[in-house]
Amino acid sequence: MRLPEFADIQAAAGRLRGHAHRTPVLRSATADARTGASLFFKCENFQRMGAFKFRGAYNAIACLTPAQRAAGVIAFSSGNHAQAIALAARLQSVRATIVMPSDAPAPKLAATREYGGEVVTYDRWAEDREALTRRLAAERGLALVPPYDHRDVIAGQGTAALELLEDAGHLDALFVCLGGGGLLSGCALAAAALSPSCAVFGVEPEAGDDGRRSLRAGRIVTIAVPKTIADGAMTTHLGELTFPIIQRHVRDIPTVSDAQLIETMRFFAERMKMVVEPTGCLAAAAAFAEAHAWRGCRVGVVVSGGNVDLARYAQWLAAA
Amino acid sequence: MRLPEFADIQAAAGRLRGHAHRTPVLRSATADARTGASLFFKCENFQRMGAFKFRGAYNAIACLTPAQRAAGVIAFSSGNHAQAIALAARLQSVRATIVMPSDAPAPKLAATREYGGEVVTYDRWAEDREALTRRLAAERGLALVPPYDHRDVIAGQGTAALELLEDAGHLDALFVCLGGGGLLSGCALAAAALSPSCAVFGVEPEAGDDGRRSLRAGRIVTIAVPKTIADGAMTTHLGELTFPIIQRHVRDIPTVSDAQLIETMRFFAERMKMVVEPTGCLAAAAAFAEAHAWRGCRVGVVVSGGNVDLARYAQWLAAA
Repeated sequence: MRLPEFADIQAAAGRLRGHAHRTPVLRSATADARTGASLFFKCENFQRMGAFKFRGAYNAIACLTPAQRAAGVIAFSSGNHAQAIALAARLQSVRATIVMPSDAPAPKLAATREYGGEVVTYDRWAEDREALTRRLAAERGLALVPPYDHRDVIAGQGTAALELLEDAGHLDALFVCLGGGGLLSGCALAAAALSPSCAVFGVEPEAGDDGRRSLRAGRIVTIAVPKTIADGAMTTHLGELTFPIIQRHVRDIPTVSDAQLIETMRFFAERMKMVVEPTGCLAAAAAFAEAHAWRGCRVGVVVSGGNVDLARYAQWLAAA
Repeated sequence: MRLPEFADIQAAAGRLRGHAHRTPVLRSATADARTGASLFFKCENFQRMGAFKFRGAYNAIACLTPAQRAAGVIAFSSGNHAQAIALAARLQSVRATIVMPSDAPAPKLAATREYGGEVVTYDRWAEDREALTRRLAAERGLALVPPYDHRDVIAGQGTAALELLEDAGHLDALFVCLGGGGLLSGCALAAAALSPSCAVFGVEPEAGDDGRRSLRAGRIVTIAVPKTIADGAMTTHLGELTFPIIQRHVRDIPTVSDAQLIETMRFFAERMKMVVEPTGCLAAAAAFAEAHAWRGCRVGVVVSGGNVDLARYAQWLAAA
């Protein structure tokens, strides 16, 4: 599969128009005062189903052939990608099968079904998720939509930065969270085209720094499943498509601790009145930590999502 | 003082441009599905200092004479109005004195000082707040900016509905929270001018239904300080200016319980990823409760603010 290019992001933007929310870019005088920079927060927590994942899922399904649309799609995910595929498929009258672990949180199973997806569960200790998915895909003739390593998914995610740059104008730096690299590589492509001097940073949780290590090593480094509250960044390795884009267009990959994520989550709630999931706090936490380097500059921050269990969220807010 | 008119709101919008945030109008497919209506949420929780109050405060200060600006302003408030005046004054290089109870929550005192206001405290059990304020105003030659019963304050608050109607287009109904009536009367004037067939509703907490009773009685009814978590609607009576506008332009005043407010607060956090204070949940709670009457209609909901103590907020979210 060829690497995605900026033209793919522009085409994705056309497909998403009227289907994805054009999410607001919010400002915070408090954040600006604390950092000395002008921060522009692209709020994908207000995206449909609560995360940027809707963009890539919708675009990938919109790019299927008529025969593929008629057969349906399949995806494996225990997180936002599952709900994104379920919702994006329903909106395009395509059947979606989602492979999820049988012990996934009940609300996530329910939400995926509510969005119209057929959920197939598997035993996470006894079965191989990818093998099961590939077998189902082959048996039923379904098109597999992977969570990040796919041209149309990357192009869809890139529309988040495209909109941010259209609304905010030139940026000197852009911080984006990094799991498998779909959002980061798409956003980096958009920034390279629209704001070529912009320094793009991927941000990982300390415990899951495979991307940072990969950038240093010059090859995809695989780690064990990291232990972090940033569940959207618990990936073990970058993708075959996302890595070369990141190598070419990303300046560096800082990491932040879970404690910094909780502090940032509290900042978002208290000062910006937004519910942001831990993964969605990665970019802002790094921007705050590295603010000394960006005084007087225009800095974009992608807030990737807001899907968080309310009970757990309440605990994080309460633990001051 | 003459009653404010729509032209005052338009003039206020000009003064606020570039100083107040043009807050986003958010949609929620879940809210639409639940109600059968098309809901448009005007998110004043994302306004500067976290509430619509900034609009009226900024406009009132911008309308002062040069002599008044040189002398400074004074306000009494233990809530959002205090912070709004402090911030709006600082931005216009005007000195602000804020009279607050000595036992006000420390974070509110700190926030008001942080925004640049000089805080004068009083003993809420031994001293008369209004008398103290008037004495200080006379001694120091300060202009008093009341929290709601003032033409320029009402005109400023009305810009929230002006923007909502500009962004959303015609609305069949508009729900607005009601305390002293500054926001409601301003929004009702804007709706009457821009969307004349729009039915405007003020929404009060059950325990503080003085507005509802006033509308029924045809005169301003005063009640004891109501006990409700909606601290922005703990007013005891409407104003001399706000009441006649409400009489003329508001269809009805439904009330909602504190339990409905908490349920709505949880909805905002879980589905719309927004932190909304109890008072800010009034309009949405009524819109949800009365949805049967508005199936297929376009309904505006003003989300008035998001300033809430995080520890208490966490408790409300956790108590499912």
